[in-house]
Amino acid sequence: MRYSRDELIKAVSGQMPEKRWKHTEGVMKSAVELAKRYGADPQKADLAALMHDVAKFWPIDQQEQVIRENHLNQDLLGNDKQLWHAEVGAFVAKRDYGIEDEEILDAIRYHTSGRIGMTMLDKVICLADYIEPGRDFPGVNNIRKLANHSLEEGLIAGLDSTIHFLLEKRKVIYPLTVLSRNDLIRQIK
Amino acid sequence: MRYSRDELIKAVSGQMPEKRWKHTEGVMKSAVELAKRYGADPQKADLAALMHDVAKFWPIDQQEQVIRENHLNQDLLGNDKQLWHAEVGAFVAKRDYGIEDEEILDAIRYHTSGRIGMTMLDKVICLADYIEPGRDFPGVNNIRKLANHSLEEGLIAGLDSTIHFLLEKRKVIYPLTVLSRNDLIRQIK
Repeated sequence: MRYSRDELIKAVSGQMPEKRWKHTEGVMKSAVELAKRYGADPQKADLAALMHDVAKFWPIDQQEQVIRENHLNQDLLGNDKQLWHAEVGAFVAKRDYGIEDEEILDAIRYHTSGRIGMTMLDKVICLADYIEPGRDFPGVNNIRKLANHSLEEGLIAGLDSTIHFLLEKRKVIYPLTVLSRNDLIRQIK
Repeated sequence: MRYSRDELIKAVSGQMPEKRWKHTEGVMKSAVELAKRYGADPQKADLAALMHDVAKFWPIDQQEQVIRENHLNQDLLGNDKQLWHAEVGAFVAKRDYGIEDEEILDAIRYHTSGRIGMTMLDKVICLADYIEPGRDFPGVNNIRKLANHSLEEGLIAGLDSTIHFLLEKRKVIYPLTVLSRNDLIRQIK
């Protein structure tokens, strides 16, 4: 690792408004708790959570440029811009902050959409992002409750809330979000 | 055409319970109305609607066999069995009833899921299936209202209701349903 945890905190918190940094701290707390409860690596969970929104407040044309120039997932460019920061964040975590652990990078990359075959760490970060203490949206307490007894149940409820939200807003639904949810439902059946 | 319309009615209605045949008659009525309103071919709409559920009450293992043996869309076999009758119906309409018009066969094939790049006839049949007079489910009157001024708006609301239903029931969402909805949203933007 090129940087200490404290240095990463300083660098990442400096790239976002205070409110978003509070959210990141919440995700770190929830991710470590979930990791301990379900047997993921708490240190990796802490680091992935710390970095997950690193690119969230980058100007959108800069995010687009990173995706284009580095041949990242071009499919994202035809979908909601809200999805871009996850892919860009994973790239930046490696290039600018020297994080090499692919498990951590994947957890950053898929924290918004999920993916088919999510690792335990992917699930922990994605779910922590839904339930961190500062979150307040319809159904969040139900997701928190489910998260107490099943990572997958919590995550399905989280992804369902995203799909509900997009339906209400008449926005395009990123197909991977649905594929992730379907995959989790098949896993617990 | 190998059979007259009356012969087809006799053959198709004989393959389903009376209630489902009533539904089919409703879809025929709504499809012809929609076709006239939006400029699709009413005769094709009538025929596609007549045939759309021809395989709906076939034993499920027989539907599966048709999909396997004729190299139809194998992807369906990993998804909800409720989707199979549309693909099987299109195949049967051609093989057993001599319907050769690919536009009609496609409208039968995609009447449950929709597809990316739906034709006007696809839209008419899919929407008529949601709003025929016998249908009664939460939100159906809103879909009917939307169908009065836009084929696409009505259809988006219909597909949304399907996705809502699958979310509530914790059932796998067929990805094509989401892709169809996304495509329609992009069309009207």
